[in-house]
Amino acid sequence: MSLIVVGSVAYDGVETPHGKIDRMLGGAATYIALAAAWFTPVKLVAVVGDDFAPEDVDLLASRAIDLDGLERVAGGKTFFWAGKYSPDMNDRTTLRTDLNVFADFDPKLPDSYRSAPYLLLGNIQPSLQKNVRAQMTAVKFAGGDTMNYWINDFRAELLETIREWDFLLINDTEARLLSGEHNLRRAAARILEMGPRALVVKRGEYGAVLFQGGCHFMAPGYLLEDVFDPTGAGDSFAGGFIGYLAGRGVSPSNGAIDFAELRRAVIYGSVMGSFCCEKFGVDRFRTLTREEIEARYREFQDCTAF
Amino acid sequence: MSLIVVGSVAYDGVETPHGKIDRMLGGAATYIALAAAWFTPVKLVAVVGDDFAPEDVDLLASRAIDLDGLERVAGGKTFFWAGKYSPDMNDRTTLRTDLNVFADFDPKLPDSYRSAPYLLLGNIQPSLQKNVRAQMTAVKFAGGDTMNYWINDFRAELLETIREWDFLLINDTEARLLSGEHNLRRAAARILEMGPRALVVKRGEYGAVLFQGGCHFMAPGYLLEDVFDPTGAGDSFAGGFIGYLAGRGVSPSNGAIDFAELRRAVIYGSVMGSFCCEKFGVDRFRTLTREEIEARYREFQDCTAF
Repeated sequence: MSLIVVGSVAYDGVETPHGKIDRMLGGAATYIALAAAWFTPVKLVAVVGDDFAPEDVDLLASRAIDLDGLERVAGGKTFFWAGKYSPDMNDRTTLRTDLNVFADFDPKLPDSYRSAPYLLLGNIQPSLQKNVRAQMTAVKFAGGDTMNYWINDFRAELLETIREWDFLLINDTEARLLSGEHNLRRAAARILEMGPRALVVKRGEYGAVLFQGGCHFMAPGYLLEDVFDPTGAGDSFAGGFIGYLAGRGVSPSNGAIDFAELRRAVIYGSVMGSFCCEKFGVDRFRTLTREEIEARYREFQDCTAF
Repeated sequence: MSLIVVGSVAYDGVETPHGKIDRMLGGAATYIALAAAWFTPVKLVAVVGDDFAPEDVDLLASRAIDLDGLERVAGGKTFFWAGKYSPDMNDRTTLRTDLNVFADFDPKLPDSYRSAPYLLLGNIQPSLQKNVRAQMTAVKFAGGDTMNYWINDFRAELLETIREWDFLLINDTEARLLSGEHNLRRAAARILEMGPRALVVKRGEYGAVLFQGGCHFMAPGYLLEDVFDPTGAGDSFAGGFIGYLAGRGVSPSNGAIDFAELRRAVIYGSVMGSFCCEKFGVDRFRTLTREEIEARYREFQDCTAF
């Protein structure tokens, strides 16, 4: 089932204890789309400048990602972000943010996208997220991500936007900020009252917790021997999560989403996030196979069952 | 199967966002013994002053904990510790440490203890831990805890001590310090080379990871709605872990410990640690029932299965 992915496509400069890359393909929508494309057909909505390289188009196209919604601004430059990770890679410092063409991003869905049933809204201005959803005619399952900036400074718009969502995918700091509750279980209960049917709280290396109604499910973080570059891990998680659900045709029934499918989606999200960290940028996705994905899913089963 | 528990019995003063208690029963061995006693007969080895209250003796005795090894120093005072937790309870500041009679603790096992098959060594000077083990004549399964102070300043003694252990139970910061590796998987591999057959790394609210040979198992932290007081949670974990294994008569066979039993032991440890946080000090253990323990074990199954 077709999945619309909306968000940033960018170039990143990244420094981790394992090395330094001055410019590589990045952006939330890139990671989401690449991760989701293992599970379901993806249609991308994003904006780039005319510096966007043919080989990066080729990579996305090679995963059968529909690029009709990838707007190119003539004379414009692609969003650029640079950052440096702390020695333990739990923190990062932003060195540079050049929004470039992304500053005026106003996503318009091509006609061929409007009837798609699945929608993943990457972290952009909440009103834009709401506009995208309004352009869709037959959406069965929609949700997305946000960040502290929108929670703090665009709260009203954000609340109006997520009220319509089937799921919200945020990290633990954002969940606390959005809810005003430090305790994760209380924070989740508050957020579910705001509208989303399901909530996934990402906890970095410690995994993720899924909440729906009075139920929750806890997925551990995969214990990697080497984290090369955590950039994009959260977005790859989102891509695996929504990609799996779209591939299975899951949608809410009587107001709730099949919890067993949601559990599996969280694990596939964790699988894709873990692969993302194994190389710089999107590099691990260049060689990844479906067999490796399934083998890691079984590893998750093996290291959590009792 | 009888379990020997060695460590501190103390009085604690604790302040958390939920309140302040000037003086209450505490100490690692207290929490370990109380948690383990739900699963197996416990024999305590510790030292107190003659200020140790009859009602605290009664509590331990009410759980059928053998107190023949609880030494009372006439004219001495019981170890006292006071601390204050940060608003999110992830950090604590020690306000006072009066070692009192604990400063000269030199554990001697009563004859009736020496043939016990199980041994849990709480966090004390490594040479003392080694001496205790040497006093035992038929030990089948032994291990324990340590802390940063011993790792930094008594490294040689510590390495000699844990070389003989079946399991080591430490937190993630200590695992990194002991191994010199930041990555948890690498840290665990290094530590297993030091002797212990199995390693449990506690990660506070994020749960615990068990390692043996090339296998690992990840248990989430229970999502409490209210953490009243985290004091003793790690020791209660240790008590549930070793108590379960002793109760089941588990011991190494061909150099390895039944991994399925170890997984369950980690969950029972997590269960006991989670109950510990629900009230101040050992208070939750005063009213806890075996039915509540089993119900929480099933909750762990329900929130991790997929």
